[in-house]
Amino acid sequence: MTATIQSIGEQGLLKLVQRFCPADIIGDDGAVLAITPNHHLVVTTDVLIDNVHFSDRTTPPHSVGWRSAAANLSDLAAMGATPIGLTIGLGLPADTSVAWVEGLYEGIQDCLRQFGGAIVGGDLARSSVRTIAITAFGQVKPSHVLTRSTAQVGDAILVTGYHGSARAGLELLLHSDSGHDLAVVDRQVLVRAHQYPTPQLAVIAELGDRAAGMDSSDGLADAVLQICRSSQVGAILDQSAIPIAPALQRYNSEQAIDWALYGGEDFELVLCLSPDAAQALLPKLPIGAAIIGQITAATAVELRQRSGEVEMLNFDRGFQHF
Amino acid sequence: MTATIQSIGEQGLLKLVQRFCPADIIGDDGAVLAITPNHHLVVTTDVLIDNVHFSDRTTPPHSVGWRSAAANLSDLAAMGATPIGLTIGLGLPADTSVAWVEGLYEGIQDCLRQFGGAIVGGDLARSSVRTIAITAFGQVKPSHVLTRSTAQVGDAILVTGYHGSARAGLELLLHSDSGHDLAVVDRQVLVRAHQYPTPQLAVIAELGDRAAGMDSSDGLADAVLQICRSSQVGAILDQSAIPIAPALQRYNSEQAIDWALYGGEDFELVLCLSPDAAQALLPKLPIGAAIIGQITAATAVELRQRSGEVEMLNFDRGFQHF
Repeated sequence: MTATIQSIGEQGLLKLVQRFCPADIIGDDGAVLAITPNHHLVVTTDVLIDNVHFSDRTTPPHSVGWRSAAANLSDLAAMGATPIGLTIGLGLPADTSVAWVEGLYEGIQDCLRQFGGAIVGGDLARSSVRTIAITAFGQVKPSHVLTRSTAQVGDAILVTGYHGSARAGLELLLHSDSGHDLAVVDRQVLVRAHQYPTPQLAVIAELGDRAAGMDSSDGLADAVLQICRSSQVGAILDQSAIPIAPALQRYNSEQAIDWALYGGEDFELVLCLSPDAAQALLPKLPIGAAIIGQITAATAVELRQRSGEVEMLNFDRGFQHF
Repeated sequence: MTATIQSIGEQGLLKLVQRFCPADIIGDDGAVLAITPNHHLVVTTDVLIDNVHFSDRTTPPHSVGWRSAAANLSDLAAMGATPIGLTIGLGLPADTSVAWVEGLYEGIQDCLRQFGGAIVGGDLARSSVRTIAITAFGQVKPSHVLTRSTAQVGDAILVTGYHGSARAGLELLLHSDSGHDLAVVDRQVLVRAHQYPTPQLAVIAELGDRAAGMDSSDGLADAVLQICRSSQVGAILDQSAIPIAPALQRYNSEQAIDWALYGGEDFELVLCLSPDAAQALLPKLPIGAAIIGQITAATAVELRQRSGEVEMLNFDRGFQHF
């Protein structure tokens, strides 16, 4: 029997692919390339497929564009880089409406106008499924590269904002009968979290030269686990400190912590820095930012629940692409 | 009726998309970004779709990988840039064989080993159709950027190699009954031209700082027309000077000139430079390189046929993606 990518799974496929990449420039949100002594180039790429990463049911074209750009800008932020620009490769069925393409580009452009960078190129191809391939690049001073692998025992773990809201917004969009007694404004806040996430580029300028981190695009649990694995440390998180938006508390307080840990696509940053630096940074961040735990010398990532019980987090709950 | 991208056509779609890009960095093979005073970054992107740009019938996975990389490296060469690296975004059906993915990456890696650059990142997504999105970036000294828009009246038009062979190779792969009396070695030369094109990076180092040009990925006629439009000049080409590989002459001498002009995917460079510079460059280039005409003050691109008749070239014969 021929082995398929389904049979080896996403981790197997990643391992296969990583054999072909230089070991020192992969395994983070973006690749860092030393172009000149004072400027490092950061490159990151995303492929988004209709009915996998977006759909007409949940995301109008303007939002598809915004999210596509925001996800890539978030990867740049997660490397400490500021955006230069991005390229857009599109695969489109011939019956795609012009309005959809226009909305997509307007969404991308609006996101770049707000956070920096320009559309600097692209390619158009005929395909049976709408496909968006974005490659973004940014620049960072060599001393300010933010990686996953430098968290230190005793570091505070800080998140730049609320978690779980994007997943809640998706739920509301997918199930029209859900949240029928939710206030209109709460619904808007959650739907907006899904359709118009904010890449955390503003915080980059506030960071010193000793921080580890990544973004929470695949969920808060995944981010902490990835950082701990890369840095060969453990962590303890305090469940009651994980910031949940009031709108999400009112919508579904039972699901909230699960969506915060595993929902993904909140595009916040998860940062590890000295407790003093974390305390100093916190007042400069928007409401929702919080210190949620600390880095330990253990090998596990533990979650101290409200009840006092301690749960071990692991990768099994994350999203599997294949 | 809702307008579709089919109804506005490829040119209409390009116009729409270009509204969103800064005017000074589009319209060439790649975008040029001034990162530092001494290093400009060149970025180019391609989307390749199963059964549009490649197929199991004509291209084994290793060749799909090689061609994908070569097409992007050719775009870098067409801007005068040397490769730094590329990212690979893949959309894959779950039943894709592991061997296909492995072959693809090996093909990309073999091409980069020979011509420079590394695989520096990527993304994997589930899709119903095999999709390859490659973004390549390279660097070029600001004084050595090669553009389409600086051809001058009196310039010689030089091509770096044979044209039409890639299209002939595709023909042989698509029609097993074709060329049945062709020598095995001729068949191999033509099939190889389709499956393993050579990006013309070697010539870059030989160019002075006054050359215009692009690659012939969409055919020789398209390249000359694009250069003339961008430079607001005309051209006269000498049909008898257009280099046709001996293997192609033997395979199909009647079709040869048509495939050379319109077949595409030969990935040679079409350069415009002073007659003296062209004569000096020619001996340094591989067999097949030739001076095929000159830039004129006319508004048309003319082809002087062997018979002495003059034909006007235009864009209508090119490949339409939508």
